[in-house]
Amino acid sequence: MDLQGKWFFELITSDLILLYRVKSSLYSGKTDFQDVEILETTTFGRSLILDGKTQSTSLDEHIYHEALVHPTMLLHPNPRSVFIGGGGEGATLREVLAHKSVERVAMVDLDSKVVELCRQYLPDHSNGAFDDPRAKVLHQDARQYLTQTQESYDVMILDLVDPLEEGTAYTLYTREFYEIARSRLKPGGTLVTQSGPASLLNHTECFTAIVHTLSEIFSRVCPYTVYVPSFVTPWAFTIAFTDSEPRDYSPKEVDGLIPQRLSKNLRFYDGITHRHMFALPSYLREGIAQERRVVTDNNPVFMV
Amino acid sequence: MDLQGKWFFELITSDLILLYRVKSSLYSGKTDFQDVEILETTTFGRSLILDGKTQSTSLDEHIYHEALVHPTMLLHPNPRSVFIGGGGEGATLREVLAHKSVERVAMVDLDSKVVELCRQYLPDHSNGAFDDPRAKVLHQDARQYLTQTQESYDVMILDLVDPLEEGTAYTLYTREFYEIARSRLKPGGTLVTQSGPASLLNHTECFTAIVHTLSEIFSRVCPYTVYVPSFVTPWAFTIAFTDSEPRDYSPKEVDGLIPQRLSKNLRFYDGITHRHMFALPSYLREGIAQERRVVTDNNPVFMV
Amino acid sequence: MDLQGKWFFELITSDLILLYRVKSSLYSGKTDFQDVEILETTTFGRSLILDGKTQSTSLDEHIYHEALVHPTMLLHPNPRSVFIGGGGEGATLREVLAHKSVERVAMVDLDSKVVELCRQYLPDHSNGAFDDPRAKVLHQDARQYLTQTQESYDVMILDLVDPLEEGTAYTLYTREFYEIARSRLKPGGTLVTQSGPASLLNHTECFTAIVHTLSEIFSRVCPYTVYVPSFVTPWAFTIAFTDSEPRDYSPKEVDGLIPQRLSKNLRFYDGITHRHMFALPSYLREGIAQERRVVTDNNPVFMV
Amino acid sequence: MDLQGKWFFELITSDLILLYRVKSSLYSGKTDFQDVEILETTTFGRSLILDGKTQSTSLDEHIYHEALVHPTMLLHPNPRSVFIGGGGEGATLREVLAHKSVERVAMVDLDSKVVELCRQYLPDHSNGAFDDPRAKVLHQDARQYLTQTQESYDVMILDLVDPLEEGTAYTLYTREFYEIARSRLKPGGTLVTQSGPASLLNHTECFTAIVHTLSEIFSRVCPYTVYVPSFVTPWAFTIAFTDSEPRDYSPKEVDGLIPQRLSKNLRFYDGITHRHMFALPSYLREGIAQERRVVTDNNPVFMV
Repeated sequence: MDLQGKWFFELITSDLILLYRVKSSLYSGKTDFQDVEILETTTFGRSLILDGKTQSTSLDEHIYHEALVHPTMLLHPNPRSVFIGGGGEGATLREVLAHKSVERVAMVDLDSKVVELCRQYLPDHSNGAFDDPRAKVLHQDARQYLTQTQESYDVMILDLVDPLEEGTAYTLYTREFYEIARSRLKPGGTLVTQSGPASLLNHTECFTAIVHTLSEIFSRVCPYTVYVPSFVTPWAFTIAFTDSEPRDYSPKEVDGLIPQRLSKNLRFYDGITHRHMFALPSYLREGIAQERRVVTDNNPVFMV
Repeated sequence: MDLQGKWFFELITSDLILLYRVKSSLYSGKTDFQDVEILETTTFGRSLILDGKTQSTSLDEHIYHEALVHPTMLLHPNPRSVFIGGGGEGATLREVLAHKSVERVAMVDLDSKVVELCRQYLPDHSNGAFDDPRAKVLHQDARQYLTQTQESYDVMILDLVDPLEEGTAYTLYTREFYEIARSRLKPGGTLVTQSGPASLLNHTECFTAIVHTLSEIFSRVCPYTVYVPSFVTPWAFTIAFTDSEPRDYSPKEVDGLIPQRLSKNLRFYDGITHRHMFALPSYLREGIAQERRVVTDNNPVFMV
Repeated sequence: MDLQGKWFFELITSDLILLYRVKSSLYSGKTDFQDVEILETTTFGRSLILDGKTQSTSLDEHIYHEALVHPTMLLHPNPRSVFIGGGGEGATLREVLAHKSVERVAMVDLDSKVVELCRQYLPDHSNGAFDDPRAKVLHQDARQYLTQTQESYDVMILDLVDPLEEGTAYTLYTREFYEIARSRLKPGGTLVTQSGPASLLNHTECFTAIVHTLSEIFSRVCPYTVYVPSFVTPWAFTIAFTDSEPRDYSPKEVDGLIPQRLSKNLRFYDGITHRHMFALPSYLREGIAQERRVVTDNNPVFMV
Repeated sequence: MDLQGKWFFELITSDLILLYRVKSSLYSGKTDFQDVEILETTTFGRSLILDGKTQSTSLDEHIYHEALVHPTMLLHPNPRSVFIGGGGEGATLREVLAHKSVERVAMVDLDSKVVELCRQYLPDHSNGAFDDPRAKVLHQDARQYLTQTQESYDVMILDLVDPLEEGTAYTLYTREFYEIARSRLKPGGTLVTQSGPASLLNHTECFTAIVHTLSEIFSRVCPYTVYVPSFVTPWAFTIAFTDSEPRDYSPKEVDGLIPQRLSKNLRFYDGITHRHMFALPSYLREGIAQERRVVTDNNPVFMV
């Protein structure tokens, strides 16, 4: 095996490193907010890296984005207005717009340069979504936008970068932020947020704290996970809502809803996959049950 | 972050490397059959590595071993005699012996030196199981043993090293071997084999071929997966049987069976975890449905 | 220390790896003869890599090229015609053309694509040398050229890629080749060849064999070494000649010859540096004294 | 090339990493003063690592220690009393005691545990020197010892760990310390200190500042370098003295002095090696000439 050549070092923790081979470097630079790398890799295809963390790759972005978007969208009986926080690649927008009921989407991503780079280098991620007349893209802090807007939404999707100590996104994972978000949800509305890694090794890093914090603000939380190959770990998401009826879709119901509600076929998400994602391994259920931290602006949680 | 120091390089593929920090090296040597490393690591605790591949670690061996053993044991109504192929650490034996119905276990592992090293360096893996009077440990090729023995078994558990091209274990993943194994199963018996990695990236490497091959020999196969942190990928297992009644245990039934049938509490496996493991993500179901390879002695399958 | 990001792996041996940080990848491709990478690095500036081996970098190419060219050029009383074998970057040509006595230079490098890439991405390496009317550049095998040409030369400079087993350059390090080369030297002519790494660790890999082989063909050989930072090892060169008078220049003489014979100032080579390079550490002198291998077409020497 | 297995990461800078293969880890722990690793490696044999930096290896320690000790010892006409600061491996002591004139040696190394570990795991480094009746070993801060002692010495040898910001050894590289040291030198005495790395890449990091600082305190300084394979860079030393006559030994004189003054043969140091080490490449001479920093307790210099 010949390992000579170019590699990307991803520091998973200070004791665990993943190296993956780089074919070529398509873009490398700094925006006003973060470092950006776009790499062509042999294992994952095109890879978007922000501040040294792999965000999405052409191999598996459909797993992440379908898992993020569709469960919460299907939980809502008729999502017409959708808010997306973050989501610079445009793939979350793409999945949202596949729902026939959707009339307008506000996507608020701080970093216009990342959006522009993704449109240029990762065009399949948005696949035309930015040109859909239902979509409005704003480059602003999502918290500031939600504080100021008069709009309210049926579904809110938080596709944010991780809460790193050296970044600013951690203010979008606090009780105060979730209160603001809830206030912009229409009656019967649902919210979902990406919630960090969720293996035996790292689920208490931020996942369980996010779940617990959401449970202080919303009357029902539904955490779930999916394995994303380029993250080399299961990844968590949490749905939260207050006014809707809790439901536990059977695989059959999910498989029935998809063609009824979506204008395209899905590549990953279906009924049995839904069951897989929502049936959590025991250590995650125990970690959530034992969690007592409430994440606040003064006591934020950081990912390693 | 200070990365100075000792690390273990695990080559996942020629394009993907995992590095994990080593505290100390407890043992490093060669047996008659394989290279053995036993490392104390910061992330995974004690780690057993055979021919450069992490086999099990003190952090997460209970996930792997409970997932391997209990579903097939519970599927059988009254497992009294059990065959284990491989399983050098003794942890599979430990889990099997926790079933109150078990009267005798034959564990056949080629490499007596690995068993001895595991008893010395990883005593928690076997936790006294080798001293249980119900257990008989033989150091012999599992295929040869099964060909020659007069014994038959209620449950057969294949806890083998991966089918690497440079090794010999690949002869324990072929149609011919599964025919021999089936012939040693008692009526109503069940068999389970570890089946390799099962992410989007690697599930067709050997997992789907193993499932398809087993389905040629047994009337029912039940593949399932579990994420093992030290493997950084979901890992697959396949249960196969012919004479028993197919059942799909509900979480409640699993949770009821565990205290009834086992003499100890489990750390990982329970009803909802069972549901998680057996509800396969769509790409695995599709990969299995499309698989046409039958693994034979002349056309073996190799893991990278 | 944050190690996240892009790195180049250089395999020095199968047990020793150098990693250096990559800012961006300027070119990555294959020519008819070799793999080429041109990287912008943080430590060494621009780096040219052929078949996975760093050839020269903007940080330190002047050390390598001044050390290769000037000692042999100054040893000759009046070098008018010069042959360069290899030297694709154009930096050897640049140094040769700085000698006022030089009237014509034939540079024979197999790989026209590498020359073109170097002119585009590493323009400082040639610094206009390719446009000098005294220079003639041919893309041909150096051995074939020397076998066929009617020309003869005052100085021959072999700036070749290393003799790797998987490459073809090893035929330019054999007794047969040196015989051909000697036959194309004018009376009083001198030849120099790059001779591989020369630390305690690796000097017998090919350096001592090259010196010994040259000593079978020429009546005098003068090995010397210089530390090249991007190679992380001292590097060897060997001057060989037959008809000239052996001389051992004092530092003062070297310092006097440089301004007299060259049309530019040098950055690295001077009198005391000359003394440093030609006074070999004891293990190199011993390694050379004990060497018995003669490199031939049938018994070539390979670098790891 | 199979890179699977155990490796040691040595961070040379934040942009340059050396990986070398580890066979086994003999010792890994913390003393009161530093982290200690003793590794069996494939490339360098046994390797002593303090605070993540390779200190000496069985492959090449003789290069480092002979280069450190003998030039300054031979410069003195009759060294009877010698002070060693640091030198925990005992190899500096071993070389000093090989001088027939030596009557007493005080070795002052802070860390008794390192000395003990070296005696156990690297017995060839001291090779019995600790049992020589002429040697006295004290475990104390070298600066404190020199401040308090009434003793004075013909030769002082500073074989110290590098001046790292996070360590304490940097106080042994300052003007104030050199003043203390000079006050403990007998008339005609000489001092030598290890002076850090000295390639084009890193010679101004601390080497040139140490030379310049010594030149403020002593009337003559003689810097020299030697390539140490396990450091992958030339390494510097500086001799300083005031009362002796400057001499520039010819290779012949060095070769004559060695058998006259030493009771054993040397493996590395001889007359031509001496010439090689003391003839500095041009960039080092220029770096020294341009250096203006004086290292003081308030303005210490740190190695990366």
